[in-house]
Amino acid sequence: MTIFDRILAGELPCHRVHENEHVLAFLDIGPLSRGHVLVIPKEARATLGELSDDAAAEIGRVLPRICRAVCAATGATSYNVLQNNGSDAHQAVMHVHFHIIPRFIDRTEADGLHLTWRPGEMDEDGTELAATIAAAID
Amino acid sequence: MTIFDRILAGELPCHRVHENEHVLAFLDIGPLSRGHVLVIPKEARATLGELSDDAAAEIGRVLPRICRAVCAATGATSYNVLQNNGSDAHQAVMHVHFHIIPRFIDRTEADGLHLTWRPGEMDEDGTELAATIAAAID
Repeated sequence: MTIFDRILAGELPCHRVHENEHVLAFLDIGPLSRGHVLVIPKEARATLGELSDDAAAEIGRVLPRICRAVCAATGATSYNVLQNNGSDAHQAVMHVHFHIIPRFIDRTEADGLHLTWRPGEMDEDGTELAATIAAAID
Repeated sequence: MTIFDRILAGELPCHRVHENEHVLAFLDIGPLSRGHVLVIPKEARATLGELSDDAAAEIGRVLPRICRAVCAATGATSYNVLQNNGSDAHQAVMHVHFHIIPRFIDRTEADGLHLTWRPGEMDEDGTELAATIAAAID
């Protein structure tokens, strides 16, 4: 049982932003910036790949309005939506969560996320790789 | 008109992974790792906050199965799902896109994403901030 299951069960408090039958949104207690929100499904799964289609759709459905509200409340105009799966991808709590992270890069002290983006080139046959992934879709 | 609109219109090629009535998934041509996939809505909006609820739900619905397929095809067990909004958040193409980025941190040369995560503390009344965001939800 993760800390998020305990929040969902009402055993631990949270700063709630939004809730419906399928999802809960609340402030991250270790915010990367002001207004850093987590959106989680009530369905308990560790990773996005394990989540049901319907639960994932319900998360998707609420993201735009929560993004708008975070921007309206904080004045942010840029934000990252980030969802980490597995320890090599910075996942700390093994219950699916989407971070909504407002960015304030003109105020470094208020912006705790830094993305280093070093794109490569497609060094193999992309057609074959795409076909391999497509064939793996269930 | 963005490069993604031109891909959707069939004017530019892509390495297609999945397509349905609402979404298109294809390989990123500047991959951060092998199997880096983009998932985009057919609805043309610049940011997630501007996307319709239904279009966002349809993106959410396909993410789990595409994540599973990327992992199956590449052997990745960790991955980030990242969606950038605004230039301060690394958005380069102004059409909503979700990155699925397999992580291979034991092979640095194959892993072009680095996240620096410097959490702060909630230095104000979280209850008040959460209420402000909640009140801004439309």
